[in-house]
Amino acid sequence: MINQRLQDQIGFIVEIDRLKRIFRQNVVIGTTEQENDAEHSWHMAVMAIILSEYSSVELNILKVLKMILVHDLVEIHAGDTFCYDEEGYRDKDEREQKSADRLFNLLPNDQASEIMSLWHEFEDMATPEAKFAASIDRLQPLLLNYNTNGHTWRKPGIMSDKVLKRNSVLEEPVPILWDLAQKIITDSIEKGYLKK
Amino acid sequence: MINQRLQDQIGFIVEIDRLKRIFRQNVVIGTTEQENDAEHSWHMAVMAIILSEYSSVELNILKVLKMILVHDLVEIHAGDTFCYDEEGYRDKDEREQKSADRLFNLLPNDQASEIMSLWHEFEDMATPEAKFAASIDRLQPLLLNYNTNGHTWRKPGIMSDKVLKRNSVLEEPVPILWDLAQKIITDSIEKGYLKK
Repeated sequence: MINQRLQDQIGFIVEIDRLKRIFRQNVVIGTTEQENDAEHSWHMAVMAIILSEYSSVELNILKVLKMILVHDLVEIHAGDTFCYDEEGYRDKDEREQKSADRLFNLLPNDQASEIMSLWHEFEDMATPEAKFAASIDRLQPLLLNYNTNGHTWRKPGIMSDKVLKRNSVLEEPVPILWDLAQKIITDSIEKGYLKK
Repeated sequence: MINQRLQDQIGFIVEIDRLKRIFRQNVVIGTTEQENDAEHSWHMAVMAIILSEYSSVELNILKVLKMILVHDLVEIHAGDTFCYDEEGYRDKDEREQKSADRLFNLLPNDQASEIMSLWHEFEDMATPEAKFAASIDRLQPLLLNYNTNGHTWRKPGIMSDKVLKRNSVLEEPVPILWDLAQKIITDSIEKGYLKK
């Protein structure tokens, strides 16, 4: 017999396989395949390792990585809310909290609490680690859209001011990457990937 | 102008998007879609966080996570070598080293060295962190195969002794998970997912 604690942990690990089927608005570079949340989370984690030197303050990088790896798990039950969908954002918090309760509580209590707390910290965007993770969460799709001729930006109603505003999160935690994001946005307008 | 260091880092980050197109032998649970290396790496990273308590020795978990996140990058140019493909294993090391040189050297020297060293440490399987990461690299597809009626195990020539041998890596670093792996393999034979 396998003990209950390990059984619960394995149950959670099997359940979160579903993150690989939660699709985002952007596509994988060089394909017409929508990226999924598992791929996005992996890409963000590697970016965090490579780009942490640009943080304006000292970071606990282990915490950043843990936060990034679990930040989208709630979308397993709540679905991906497109960042420019104002309607979808109205009940996003409620849907995601329900999903978090259902999913994280598959784990033993101590681990459920740890993951819940990491997710809340990410969402609240108040600590250095959460601000840095949020910045990477903006920069990753920016790079993908820039390298797919502005795939997501061609959807109706998306203009450069919205993209700029969404990426302004980078300004305080990673000023050099905020500078980069602005250059990419300007260049995207020039190249016709993004409407001014 | 963006400085050269940052340009190189962004070039690497865009290039590794290709890991999302390197497909493995197993499928995502509940689908007929082959899992890709980015999804596999993300899943392993979360597993490492949840299961690190079973390590027989103290671990530097940050190092484990970094190692897991980059361990399959070399497959971008070398491709995925099926673990039961003896032919493919003959020139695997040479193909992968070439791929590592080409890929990691997109990064600034200090970061290229760090990633190269993490990848070699993983491959050499000599340190506690590398042994633990290798164990998770075995257990993750075991769980996926068990939950997809033995998808990969139905390929010609795969018998339980090969699967058991491959998973015996778990014995020293994570004895409790080795016990679990053996139970899953026994149960898979009984359920007809795996030939004895």
